[in-house]
Amino acid sequence: MIETINIMLAGPRGKMGTEALSMIKETEHFNLVGCIDRKHNGNSVQDIDGLPTLDAPIYTDAEEAFDRINADVFIDLTNPDSGYNHTKLALLNHIRPVIGTSGFSEGQLDELRELSTNQQTGIVIAPNFAIGAVLMMRFSQMAAKYFPNVEIIEKHHDQKLDAPSGTAAKTAQLIKEVRGSKRQGHPNEKETLEGARGAEVDGIRIHSVRLPGFIAEQEVIFGQGGQTLTINHHSSNRQSFMSGVKFAVEQVMTIDHFVYGLENLME
Amino acid sequence: MIETINIMLAGPRGKMGTEALSMIKETEHFNLVGCIDRKHNGNSVQDIDGLPTLDAPIYTDAEEAFDRINADVFIDLTNPDSGYNHTKLALLNHIRPVIGTSGFSEGQLDELRELSTNQQTGIVIAPNFAIGAVLMMRFSQMAAKYFPNVEIIEKHHDQKLDAPSGTAAKTAQLIKEVRGSKRQGHPNEKETLEGARGAEVDGIRIHSVRLPGFIAEQEVIFGQGGQTLTINHHSSNRQSFMSGVKFAVEQVMTIDHFVYGLENLME
Amino acid sequence: MIETINIMLAGPRGKMGTEALSMIKETEHFNLVGCIDRKHNGNSVQDIDGLPTLDAPIYTDAEEAFDRINADVFIDLTNPDSGYNHTKLALLNHIRPVIGTSGFSEGQLDELRELSTNQQTGIVIAPNFAIGAVLMMRFSQMAAKYFPNVEIIEKHHDQKLDAPSGTAAKTAQLIKEVRGSKRQGHPNEKETLEGARGAEVDGIRIHSVRLPGFIAEQEVIFGQGGQTLTINHHSSNRQSFMSGVKFAVEQVMTIDHFVYGLENLME
Amino acid sequence: MIETINIMLAGPRGKMGTEALSMIKETEHFNLVGCIDRKHNGNSVQDIDGLPTLDAPIYTDAEEAFDRINADVFIDLTNPDSGYNHTKLALLNHIRPVIGTSGFSEGQLDELRELSTNQQTGIVIAPNFAIGAVLMMRFSQMAAKYFPNVEIIEKHHDQKLDAPSGTAAKTAQLIKEVRGSKRQGHPNEKETLEGARGAEVDGIRIHSVRLPGFIAEQEVIFGQGGQTLTINHHSSNRQSFMSGVKFAVEQVMTIDHFVYGLENLME
Repeated sequence: MIETINIMLAGPRGKMGTEALSMIKETEHFNLVGCIDRKHNGNSVQDIDGLPTLDAPIYTDAEEAFDRINADVFIDLTNPDSGYNHTKLALLNHIRPVIGTSGFSEGQLDELRELSTNQQTGIVIAPNFAIGAVLMMRFSQMAAKYFPNVEIIEKHHDQKLDAPSGTAAKTAQLIKEVRGSKRQGHPNEKETLEGARGAEVDGIRIHSVRLPGFIAEQEVIFGQGGQTLTINHHSSNRQSFMSGVKFAVEQVMTIDHFVYGLENLME
Repeated sequence: MIETINIMLAGPRGKMGTEALSMIKETEHFNLVGCIDRKHNGNSVQDIDGLPTLDAPIYTDAEEAFDRINADVFIDLTNPDSGYNHTKLALLNHIRPVIGTSGFSEGQLDELRELSTNQQTGIVIAPNFAIGAVLMMRFSQMAAKYFPNVEIIEKHHDQKLDAPSGTAAKTAQLIKEVRGSKRQGHPNEKETLEGARGAEVDGIRIHSVRLPGFIAEQEVIFGQGGQTLTINHHSSNRQSFMSGVKFAVEQVMTIDHFVYGLENLME
Repeated sequence: MIETINIMLAGPRGKMGTEALSMIKETEHFNLVGCIDRKHNGNSVQDIDGLPTLDAPIYTDAEEAFDRINADVFIDLTNPDSGYNHTKLALLNHIRPVIGTSGFSEGQLDELRELSTNQQTGIVIAPNFAIGAVLMMRFSQMAAKYFPNVEIIEKHHDQKLDAPSGTAAKTAQLIKEVRGSKRQGHPNEKETLEGARGAEVDGIRIHSVRLPGFIAEQEVIFGQGGQTLTINHHSSNRQSFMSGVKFAVEQVMTIDHFVYGLENLME
Repeated sequence: MIETINIMLAGPRGKMGTEALSMIKETEHFNLVGCIDRKHNGNSVQDIDGLPTLDAPIYTDAEEAFDRINADVFIDLTNPDSGYNHTKLALLNHIRPVIGTSGFSEGQLDELRELSTNQQTGIVIAPNFAIGAVLMMRFSQMAAKYFPNVEIIEKHHDQKLDAPSGTAAKTAQLIKEVRGSKRQGHPNEKETLEGARGAEVDGIRIHSVRLPGFIAEQEVIFGQGGQTLTINHHSSNRQSFMSGVKFAVEQVMTIDHFVYGLENLME
């Protein structure tokens, strides 16, 4: 029998928050015991339009929430500012935080690491909850040891403003850590049309496709004499993050220290 | 019963030429009646190291060859200069030419068109014999009427010097003929790393991947709300051209005029 | 200037119907003039929860609707039974029908064809409004003339009950019309695990993937010596049908006869 | 400076053997010191038609070869029978074997393991030298922990007799070790055409495509709510095995025990 995990969540009305409530509701051994929200103090989750029918009290005051609620895990899906304060309160109350943000400063991360150590309370901070994307990056780093020649193609809808995507840049950086900088392609190769060979990060080429009809996709292509190895991650909606949140909640129960990035929870 | 087609070929020892001889040998209704080569005058094809066992005379003098050999079709797989002279001789002798080159000038093409008309002799000049590539370009042009947003990714081995490939540039031009110029992507999109969005031809983005392990591949991606349509051509060796040569030989027998490009032989 | 097209729609509250109302609202030269619905007689579309803010009267009685409303085009997104009756009424009133169903019997289709001829009124019946899927099937049929060896892979979410998909079966049938039946693969090939080589339709192999995370995708793969040609259609939501509905509405205005299938509206 | 590794090779005239000689020639710190062949006793490698210009003696008698030649590593690319005898001789002479075969029996493997231990001599036996394929299988096993729903598509030329491929079956087995048996797809799913859902191995579906134009390709597709993760390996020629042979030669120098499978040499 799996033991029930009691969960407190901040940000229930955000897109990610609502998705997380559905996930909690559908997971037999997860139990929602309370929420922190900017509105609706004193209500139950199920009273709020658009939220799943879960009976758990809402608090607008975070300190009061942590005072009154007895939870095992605290999930924060708000923003870096509120998230930082909530996380400190959770650690002080020995409630294990699972935080989805890439917005904490180095200083904040150091502080939370120290607090986690002092409180002997596990914490997981994940800049990316899409397990598939985390695995794609991990496999890419492993493959680069044996396949030093690599290019990245990422495809997104045409409303995305920046190119390349953050995930592509991060993947290139992880690959570089393993194989170093390396000139790829023919030494005399020539772009007859500027930009054809894509952007370059330490020799790794990144190509950004922007078309209506795409949502979010990345493929990392490794080549060597006679063979190619390709790792592709495709994500079609927010649901893709929930298996990562669920995994982090289960894992944070087994640790008493600070972990940054889902990849560091994987064997 | 299919009638036998008697074929004369120039350039038997080139890579394409040797491949073509094998194709002729394996095609029941094709019959090799002679070759033009820079060497080996008076020999038979089968006497030459590395060529298929076909019994047909070799001539080094083109005029003599056209004088002595009675062929239905003349295949030229040499170079634009020799090819041009051979082609004129073929037309003058009412032998239908099948020529694989993109190297003739506009003036030369005009002259050959006129000669074909005067001689009432069919001729096929094909810059690309890979039927799959020709279909890819044709389908792309058709799709662009309904899917104006499109990007091209082409992947080649890393010994290729120029980017983008000629086929990619040609595809973009064919698409442009149908849909005109068009700004794609978000009006405010921004490259945080230069080149990420690829090369641009009339708004169409082209991305060139160069990695060991690839041979030659192109994919044309069309997107619109909720759907994408992708056409991919992959070629792994020279054999891919032979079905196009065979097709051209069969089709040139049915025409008495000038045709440029395999696509104009397709219904 | 493009002339405004006045449109009447049956089934505004269905998933497709609501999507179509949004499309009409966003298309400058489309104008909604009325709806047929099983409920809400006398209301305006904008009064109904969940529908776009369009001011057009709703009728529950179809005859009354066609009596009172003066439309150019009638879109039916209900079901084959209601759809059949509505379509006849539309033709009798010289309103051009655009009907999205594959559910009409041969007899019904014959009757509608005859009525369209007698009334000299254009009509488009489309079993599939996804233009990308229609093009995929069309290109597949064209490619099969030159690439007789072909297999189909279709990928859907794991809630789909039947395998293969209707689109895959239809594609195989269209290919067969062109190339006939043909044994593919090695004559002595052997399945060491039953089913590995997929389902067979006249020699064409179909493979059905069912996994969570997929929505709807099909790829048609053609191979011959040294090359492959692949046509892939991916659809991620209902929006993908709307460009087809829009296209049909614009085209039906230019014809005065019966057309079955969007492909027959394409040049 | 990298120390030179002296290599002895059995089977120089086989396809893999000749490819390996080229690799040795091109690798600066590899040095060929002798070959075992069924013919050409007393000759030098460079005297044999079709072999690279390497000066190293050929022996037809294996015992004599191991007696006379002082090598660091012994590569066997012959067949299981000869290979087994050669390997024992190599271990007895404290020359580290790198053996590419999947054909040894359990009994033979046990014996070689014991001999390696007794002789304190490293040995690598690899059923698959394609590093990309080994990584694909390894990543698949890792991914299956987080993505239990998975299907495999493998694509080969149409001269291949058996379906599914050995690599596909092996991949399925590796995945099963991690996730166990699991019923996939909808409980009520139905094949309207037999075989559409592919072959089944412990719930994992395998689909085998056989078309001219393909060489060898496999893709392992993992899906869960809102995302898919795909690992694809494509191999176009025998050269793809050589980076694996090279890797094994370098690694065997660093070990003094028995290793089965390249994956067990990877960190």
